[in-house]
Amino acid sequence: MSQYQKSDKSQRDTMEDDLAPRAVLRPKQSHDSTPKKKNDKKAHAPTLRMIPLGGLREVGKNMTVFEYGNDLIIIDCGIAFPDDNMPGVDTIIPDFTYLRENKEKIHGLVITHGHEDHIGAIPWFLQEFDVPVYATPLTMKLIELKLDDFRPKMKSNKLQVVRAGESLTIGPFTFDFIHVNHSIADAVSIAIHTPVGIIFYTGDFKIDYTPTSGVPPADLGKIAALGNEGVLALISESTNVEEPGTSLSELEVGKTFEDIFHRVTGRVIVATFSSNVFRLQQVISTAERFGRKVLILGRSIQNVFEAANKLDYLTYQPNTIIQVNELDQYPPEKIVILATGSQGEPMSALTRLAFSEHKLTEIIPGDTVILSSSMIPGNEAAIYNVINELFMRGANVIYKTLSAVHASGHACQDELKLILTLTRPTYFIPAHGEYRMLYQHAELASLMGIPDDHIAILQNGDILEFSEDGMEFAGYTEAAGVLIDGSGMGDVDELVLSDRLRLANDGVISVMLVIDRLSNRLYGAPIIKASGVIYQSDMKKMISTCQDTVEDMAEQLFKKKKPLDKTMTPDSVSKEVQKVLFDRTRRRPLVMTSVTVI
Amino acid sequence: MSQYQKSDKSQRDTMEDDLAPRAVLRPKQSHDSTPKKKNDKKAHAPTLRMIPLGGLREVGKNMTVFEYGNDLIIIDCGIAFPDDNMPGVDTIIPDFTYLRENKEKIHGLVITHGHEDHIGAIPWFLQEFDVPVYATPLTMKLIELKLDDFRPKMKSNKLQVVRAGESLTIGPFTFDFIHVNHSIADAVSIAIHTPVGIIFYTGDFKIDYTPTSGVPPADLGKIAALGNEGVLALISESTNVEEPGTSLSELEVGKTFEDIFHRVTGRVIVATFSSNVFRLQQVISTAERFGRKVLILGRSIQNVFEAANKLDYLTYQPNTIIQVNELDQYPPEKIVILATGSQGEPMSALTRLAFSEHKLTEIIPGDTVILSSSMIPGNEAAIYNVINELFMRGANVIYKTLSAVHASGHACQDELKLILTLTRPTYFIPAHGEYRMLYQHAELASLMGIPDDHIAILQNGDILEFSEDGMEFAGYTEAAGVLIDGSGMGDVDELVLSDRLRLANDGVISVMLVIDRLSNRLYGAPIIKASGVIYQSDMKKMISTCQDTVEDMAEQLFKKKKPLDKTMTPDSVSKEVQKVLFDRTRRRPLVMTSVTVI
Repeated sequence: MSQYQKSDKSQRDTMEDDLAPRAVLRPKQSHDSTPKKKNDKKAHAPTLRMIPLGGLREVGKNMTVFEYGNDLIIIDCGIAFPDDNMPGVDTIIPDFTYLRENKEKIHGLVITHGHEDHIGAIPWFLQEFDVPVYATPLTMKLIELKLDDFRPKMKSNKLQVVRAGESLTIGPFTFDFIHVNHSIADAVSIAIHTPVGIIFYTGDFKIDYTPTSGVPPADLGKIAALGNEGVLALISESTNVEEPGTSLSELEVGKTFEDIFHRVTGRVIVATFSSNVFRLQQVISTAERFGRKVLILGRSIQNVFEAANKLDYLTYQPNTIIQVNELDQYPPEKIVILATGSQGEPMSALTRLAFSEHKLTEIIPGDTVILSSSMIPGNEAAIYNVINELFMRGANVIYKTLSAVHASGHACQDELKLILTLTRPTYFIPAHGEYRMLYQHAELASLMGIPDDHIAILQNGDILEFSEDGMEFAGYTEAAGVLIDGSGMGDVDELVLSDRLRLANDGVISVMLVIDRLSNRLYGAPIIKASGVIYQSDMKKMISTCQDTVEDMAEQLFKKKKPLDKTMTPDSVSKEVQKVLFDRTRRRPLVMTSVTVI
Repeated sequence: MSQYQKSDKSQRDTMEDDLAPRAVLRPKQSHDSTPKKKNDKKAHAPTLRMIPLGGLREVGKNMTVFEYGNDLIIIDCGIAFPDDNMPGVDTIIPDFTYLRENKEKIHGLVITHGHEDHIGAIPWFLQEFDVPVYATPLTMKLIELKLDDFRPKMKSNKLQVVRAGESLTIGPFTFDFIHVNHSIADAVSIAIHTPVGIIFYTGDFKIDYTPTSGVPPADLGKIAALGNEGVLALISESTNVEEPGTSLSELEVGKTFEDIFHRVTGRVIVATFSSNVFRLQQVISTAERFGRKVLILGRSIQNVFEAANKLDYLTYQPNTIIQVNELDQYPPEKIVILATGSQGEPMSALTRLAFSEHKLTEIIPGDTVILSSSMIPGNEAAIYNVINELFMRGANVIYKTLSAVHASGHACQDELKLILTLTRPTYFIPAHGEYRMLYQHAELASLMGIPDDHIAILQNGDILEFSEDGMEFAGYTEAAGVLIDGSGMGDVDELVLSDRLRLANDGVISVMLVIDRLSNRLYGAPIIKASGVIYQSDMKKMISTCQDTVEDMAEQLFKKKKPLDKTMTPDSVSKEVQKVLFDRTRRRPLVMTSVTVI
């Protein structure tokens, strides 16, 4: 039982009270309980603050603030996807409250790579904070596409491209952009040289000794040099911490493609994550070796393809790429289609093909479909739905880990250990992942000799301070995540969501009644409408039950000489209708009653 | 490309038309196209009809009808679980239409084993069809529990226990109950001796050469004997057809428990599927070897434990099992808790422990929690949520395939091949699974030499006929699944669900107005109420927008001297409000308008 578990337990009571478990920390003072120069500190040099605004104890919306005195920079600005309990919510972005409170301090936003969970919230960020954004070339192209897609369309004249290998000084910080491997081109780790020491922020990464041609392995030399110089804190991603060993190399994926192309005689359709330029290259290269043409199908993959082309990141013969109107000119065995839809997205090319809804082409029996991707949790049902349809239309589908048609972009245990070994950090903060992942990453660091009180399993909003006295937990700020629904930002909350879930489960009944004050009777019959409750045909009976209930209620009150306009309030009517409905049907639709007195 | 793929393609146009793909079949006539004695048939002996009412191209609600002339029996009667697009739906049961139409023919219901997807719909079935139910001892205990739990509580005096190894003659059929291994005790395959030949129906099964002590391996001798006698058709489950090799033995799970118990010093909490009596036995036996006491926590696992005890299916020392009030008498290293909640079910023992909501006990740092179960697709998020909370409370959690803490109950490829080899069926029908699984099972049978036109990938509702002329597709019946919502049966349909999904996404606004015919004006302000749209605070503005819209509309009509009572219909008001809301907020709540004219 390591110490950070114990401190966890000690915080449990608080956790139960506010339902928002605070930092599970093992800063030294919690063990030896001496307040340690706390009062002197104000006189000291400022501390370095690290504040994760997203990405901790969750997957998604990565965003981390680094602040030293009056200077603040941010790394990444991503979105998270809503879960089943958030109907109608399109996207979740980080809470910018802390940034608003420290607006004048912000020097800029530094981006590690171009995935949605790292760049997705940039349009909302730039609407409020007009500061420079620093990113590598492909990442920046994807940011530009994103701003262009946003409604209202956006543009920033403060986008600054930085290349891996370069450094950048912003305020008191110097940033090294360090090449790493990942499932998207131009991913970097960031080393931040701060007045209190070096912070090494891995971002999403893996170490691939044999990536696609032209791409070097992660810059381990630079990382080792930083370790030799002395790293104060390592902030390392935890996505694949549950996987032992090392991640698969792109080289192996290439070999699998080679094997499949050897076996297959019909068309080959490959669906993959659009932004995985390396995978696009692998498919195109394999196609060329087998004398096949390549059609790029689907908007987002075409966008990435064009962006990568502009940067000269793709290598192919000029006549390899064909357009959809050229499909008929080649026999099936000469065709490869690179398509969107590896996650079963409803409007993607592959889903349309599967359901015979694509305008331009369709599945031909004998097609081989390769899902060169992982299944993002929550998407399984949609993906299997597409796979079933593809099989029904006569395609053969290669998916899952049946063969090595996909390599994860995230470091497995041995790669994580390598980074720990090269950087030899004084402090360690596992990042990017659910609690179980952060915990296991902490365990791994502990096994490798990092003292438990030098490891912090943080939570979004925690304020961690680094000074010459060490690492200290210094309170927290708001970081619950802001729900985006349609064009509204943050105007949906738990209460609205719980109303929606109730509506979803049982539907709604509206009751309208007019009370004639003079006669102390209802004026006409109450009007009842329903939606989402039961069959329209069965609903008639339920509606007349509701009408009877309201009329009986009025009749009883009339007989008792109670004034209807005072007693038949919307609340009392709704409650009575609800009660009768539940007794008779065991259903609890929302009842909305409106009363007019004439 | 095998033939059943081709026939699939040939049916595509029809599939698109009715959106309900019909039988993907390769009966011989579709190839040589001679109608083959079709007209003589009426003079012949009756054919054997097989009609799957559930379980094909889906996971769940297994139910298959076998009918010969005026005699009909049913195998299994299970439920399926609703997906994300079915808010408010509790359960899905098979469509009994065909059974209603042939009510007088029904001789009884034969059950293969006691899992929900095989017995869950029995209460609804027995409400309509008062026929005998045949099942093995534990299966029958679970059926009795189910009838007892049902509201209204039910009882049948026609429950007949049959043991594995026994046979039973019902009408023209003789049923052999054949012991197989599965993740529940008393699972059987069924051989049906019919006038046209032997049907071998595997049910859910695996072949475990080393199951828990006292339990024999599947009765391969009997299965081989049937094969030697000649099997007309094999109907075999397809759950694990994507897994090569063979399934893990319970022996290996026992070894893993042994390893974990050796390592662990605190309490051990094991969550597993309640009905997996073998797993309960393994945990109890391991606990005894390590001198630990066992607490059974959670209602459903207690029920199964008691049922298994009554049948003498569990072996343990009398003082091994303790009650919750005895927990304090033993140190942590002497305790094992067997709990419900392996799927993250909200009210289960493990979930309550994880969230510190259990009345009787709580997680102690140092506890080891073992999730001895697979993750049923769709439950992952809930399960990981529980795992995260357990870690936060200081427990160590062993889950997934980190170690062999769970063995699947379903046959992998080599076991499926073994059954095909032993039975050597003339015809093969893959069952229990999504299309991709049925397809791959068909491929496997094809590889093993079964001609493509002797393999049928059916769909729920298909009517397949066996006669001396072979296997033929003979139309279909209704089998779409009936949605159960609360106490209502089948009163929720696609339309209701689409209303509910819309309500979930955007909420609802009710508008009530009273029109004064004489003045041709509104009587008072329209009453607007909303639920699930946006924040209550922001809602005020939206409500006044709606009021303004309705009042403007009335004002315009008044000025144009149009009679309000004719023109301000509920529809026209709803449309106008919807339009204005969408223009201003990009939201499309449902608008329900009621109009009273005075």
